[in-house]
Amino acid sequence: MKITDVVITPIAMKDPPLRNIQGIHQPYALRSILQVGTDEGLTGLGETYGDLAILSALRKVAPRLTGLDPFDLNGLERIIRETLGATAGRATHGLVGEASDEKTLATVLSAFEVACWDLQGRALGRPVVELLGGKVRDTVPYSGYLFFKPSVHNPDPGYEPDRWGEAMDAEGIVAQARRMVDGYGFKSLKLKGGVLPPSEEADAILALRDAFPEHPLRLDPNAGWTVESSIAVGKKLDGVLEYLEDPTGGIDGMAAVAREVSMPLATNMCVTAFSHIPPAVKVDAVQVVLSDHHFWGGLRRSRELAAICRTFGIGLSMHSNSHLGISLAAMTHLAGATPELTYDCDTHYPYLVEDVVQEGVLEFIDGAVRVPSASGLGVDLDLDSLARLAEQYDKCGFDTRDDITPMRAVQPGWDPVIPRW
Amino acid sequence: MKITDVVITPIAMKDPPLRNIQGIHQPYALRSILQVGTDEGLTGLGETYGDLAILSALRKVAPRLTGLDPFDLNGLERIIRETLGATAGRATHGLVGEASDEKTLATVLSAFEVACWDLQGRALGRPVVELLGGKVRDTVPYSGYLFFKPSVHNPDPGYEPDRWGEAMDAEGIVAQARRMVDGYGFKSLKLKGGVLPPSEEADAILALRDAFPEHPLRLDPNAGWTVESSIAVGKKLDGVLEYLEDPTGGIDGMAAVAREVSMPLATNMCVTAFSHIPPAVKVDAVQVVLSDHHFWGGLRRSRELAAICRTFGIGLSMHSNSHLGISLAAMTHLAGATPELTYDCDTHYPYLVEDVVQEGVLEFIDGAVRVPSASGLGVDLDLDSLARLAEQYDKCGFDTRDDITPMRAVQPGWDPVIPRW
Repeated sequence: MKITDVVITPIAMKDPPLRNIQGIHQPYALRSILQVGTDEGLTGLGETYGDLAILSALRKVAPRLTGLDPFDLNGLERIIRETLGATAGRATHGLVGEASDEKTLATVLSAFEVACWDLQGRALGRPVVELLGGKVRDTVPYSGYLFFKPSVHNPDPGYEPDRWGEAMDAEGIVAQARRMVDGYGFKSLKLKGGVLPPSEEADAILALRDAFPEHPLRLDPNAGWTVESSIAVGKKLDGVLEYLEDPTGGIDGMAAVAREVSMPLATNMCVTAFSHIPPAVKVDAVQVVLSDHHFWGGLRRSRELAAICRTFGIGLSMHSNSHLGISLAAMTHLAGATPELTYDCDTHYPYLVEDVVQEGVLEFIDGAVRVPSASGLGVDLDLDSLARLAEQYDKCGFDTRDDITPMRAVQPGWDPVIPRW
Repeated sequence: MKITDVVITPIAMKDPPLRNIQGIHQPYALRSILQVGTDEGLTGLGETYGDLAILSALRKVAPRLTGLDPFDLNGLERIIRETLGATAGRATHGLVGEASDEKTLATVLSAFEVACWDLQGRALGRPVVELLGGKVRDTVPYSGYLFFKPSVHNPDPGYEPDRWGEAMDAEGIVAQARRMVDGYGFKSLKLKGGVLPPSEEADAILALRDAFPEHPLRLDPNAGWTVESSIAVGKKLDGVLEYLEDPTGGIDGMAAVAREVSMPLATNMCVTAFSHIPPAVKVDAVQVVLSDHHFWGGLRRSRELAAICRTFGIGLSMHSNSHLGISLAAMTHLAGATPELTYDCDTHYPYLVEDVVQEGVLEFIDGAVRVPSASGLGVDLDLDSLARLAEQYDKCGFDTRDDITPMRAVQPGWDPVIPRW
């Protein structure tokens, strides 16, 4: 089996005005959709960030893959390294920590690697989970992901407002959580913080605790706090949080917080590449790593991360950016084959109102997604939807994620100061 | 594809009287040969230690595997854990470090896991190396493994003496090395130490350096020395050794030596399970780990070890026990797909005079073995040879490796004191 052609389609999908430390989500989230064709007539799917820098890197690599065997993942990595070189650029978003050449390479690798796994599975008539060592769970539990948000984008993007309404205080967050839990059955909840002063976000968590006494709770201000603020919140929420995620920035900062608070600290910001692990281990900076196959280098590298976490007694959870069904399928296969993953995974999927994959495979029941059983990733493109979202990309007016500009449209002069509090 | 039957055959193969810190090799080395059959009529091969404790564990697990999909490696591990429980026993030999329940489980897992990889490859018409991510090298370089040895076993086992003759001093070792290099083309050399006083073994290394100025050299006394002796040898061989392997025992002992000598320290004794890695990393005890799929839990776990070594800046080499062609094939596929492996692998294969696999696949050219290209491991059983070696097992008079007894036959009252010097 040889790769014969690669089609990369940037798409834009409607996205609610979700708030975070960097500002507010744009009215469209961007993704790159990969279709990798072979001489056997199979097509493998991949999905990653849609930012221009990543898109450009993907497009540089694509023509070099002709003739590659989709089983040859070592060859894939070699081609990508040769093509992008040591200066792959800094292309990822600040919410997943510092951008680096290493992370760009890993991101590009992941997009093609997932498509190769899909091809392997389709060729063998086996779901990807079986190629990753076999299912350790039939369904993968996800957490309900809560965001502070206004009810509408400003300026109005001209499409129907989202169904979640405003949530700019504890009461709004509890109501959002209620809809998440009622609609999807989530058994744990995560609040994106870094929006209100820390004590107000802690109060929102306490309100969630009252409303959902059995749900594990997480809070993630994306490194928006000083060490001192982080410790104060950590003490206030002693016994309440399942984990506190990236309260402050950097390995040393996290280590300083970890020494003073009782709950585990989790990260998808200070440990986001293999080179970050030794220094983090040395000072016991984090007790949980949120893996993300998109920037850790794919499913195989994510399994390596899992092995490292198991070996060093670090917990493993899973991070999410705004994504479509191809990524949700990949995340679910990976989690389905990863015994080390003992926390519910993050997902933005409930905020999605349009997808590029055909309906019927990815459904949340009791907060979990069944590992797809069809060949490969188990999802197929809806080509009409893909075309429509590609057209939306052409019309949306931007090619890179930028949460600051829409925030400034609401609060002129706003800056993403980190730490803010 | 489902497993329908498992045949486990203990065999004994003629083995030269090779010396080490534990004594001297028995006239026969024991191995367990696994044939794992499926409902599709395929047979996958595995090979591991033949010691009774391992053989018993393998036999306990075998009937539980009926119905298992050979792709379900997570299921395989689950069944083995359920079958052997937390008290799998201490079954491995002292030359690979302390025995433990964890290592016994990993050893049993590995034997069946390799057979499952063989089945996967045979079912897909692909060599195992392709299922491990693809070839990063066409041929796998091995090192020439030198041993102090008498010319014959005592008492005489009644078969033709080996072709290597006596080597009980530097001159004998250089002559042995010459035959190794001339016959197999090895580009690096390893001397098994722990037999003569350390300064004499260091002299043997210096003699090898004179005779083979371009060959990387290694010395492995199997933890036979004190920290002080280790440092003395390390200083004497400054600039001469590629690495010094297990000069002394334990993570703390190795760390104490590492602080004082210039060459990397390697181990297959103090870091032989995942639980040993964090304490070793913490004190920088070892700079090279010798992986061995037989006791690290198979090819998948060995890849995880490689990822950990890459992440923590630890070199990766490969250990060998006396083995047959099934293991050599598995080692070669694994090394062929592991970019992290940058040292020549160990092998006892040149000492072998009888194999259970058909000839023609595994050949040393310029010290390297070409990664087999046929489906699966790429080797097939010679059933006549298997039967003959099984008969040899029944007649050899022992069921567990024991290097002490034959040593005492030469030197009554000899004890395997560690450290000896």
